Amino acid sequence: MEIDNPDVIAEARAVFDRYEAAIASNDTDVLDASFWPDARTVRFGVTEILYGIDAIRAFRSTVKSYAPRITRKVHITAFGRDFACTHLEYERVGTGLIGRETKIMARLPEHGWRVVSAHVSLLAGHDPGRTQKG
Amino acid sequence: MEIDNPDVIAEARAVFDRYEAAIASNDTDVLDASFWPDARTVRFGVTEILYGIDAIRAFRSTVKSYAPRITRKVHITAFGRDFACTHLEYERVGTGLIGRETKIMARLPEHGWRVVSAHVSLLAGHDPGRTQKG
Repeated sequence: MEIDNPDVIAEARAVFDRYEAAIASNDTDVLDASFWPDARTVRFGVTEILYGIDAIRAFRSTVKSYAPRITRKVHITAFGRDFACTHLEYERVGTGLIGRETKIMARLPEHGWRVVSAHVSLLAGHDPGRTQKG
Repeated sequence: MEIDNPDVIAEARAVFDRYEAAIASNDTDVLDASFWPDARTVRFGVTEILYGIDAIRAFRSTVKSYAPRITRKVHITAFGRDFACTHLEYERVGTGLIGRETKIMARLPEHGWRVVSAHVSLLAGHDPGRTQKG
């Protein structure tokens, strides 16, 4: 399995960039079209657990604006010709909050590149449930 | 591309189940062996942003125990023969906190099935940065 084929990375990056622009402008049509239109698509958001494209679209339709964010890092890995993971680390403007977004993209025969799963979260400063050594 | 081949789902589920058991017992060797030993592996944890297997292993070595969790839902999707996304929704025992964990698994020729990216987060009750319609 070829890892990080440059063409695949570039294709995933194009989807990623279009998605980021759509978050900034809250372009619901582009956001909806970026996701796999299937009942198996998943989006774990900061405050959402969404299974299926219908739930994801219903959520999008409620949003007036997303918190503005500045990219800190983008890390993309491509596996074979049809699969990529994109990782975004960002800062919410003026808040000091750090967010992370993982998107899993697949090139589907009938749709082209689509996000099949997304997970967005804000970094916590402390985890009360975990114990540390030492 | 075949989606949700039962054999592939079963293979991903086996890795998933072994990983969950290792979290419960804090079996560092199994957790370390579950991840792709590569500088491109990513783990976004509740309080961590980790790039590369060395950073992930260094983190594991600090953990004495993980917060006990009860599975609420597992959702796995397989793409082709060599790629799967596993989604876990869980509750932290006795806290009411809901967690989500996405793992991206690839079947790599030299390693077999490995987690190439993981994202863990706790569900937030409110997102102060987003505005809603209506």
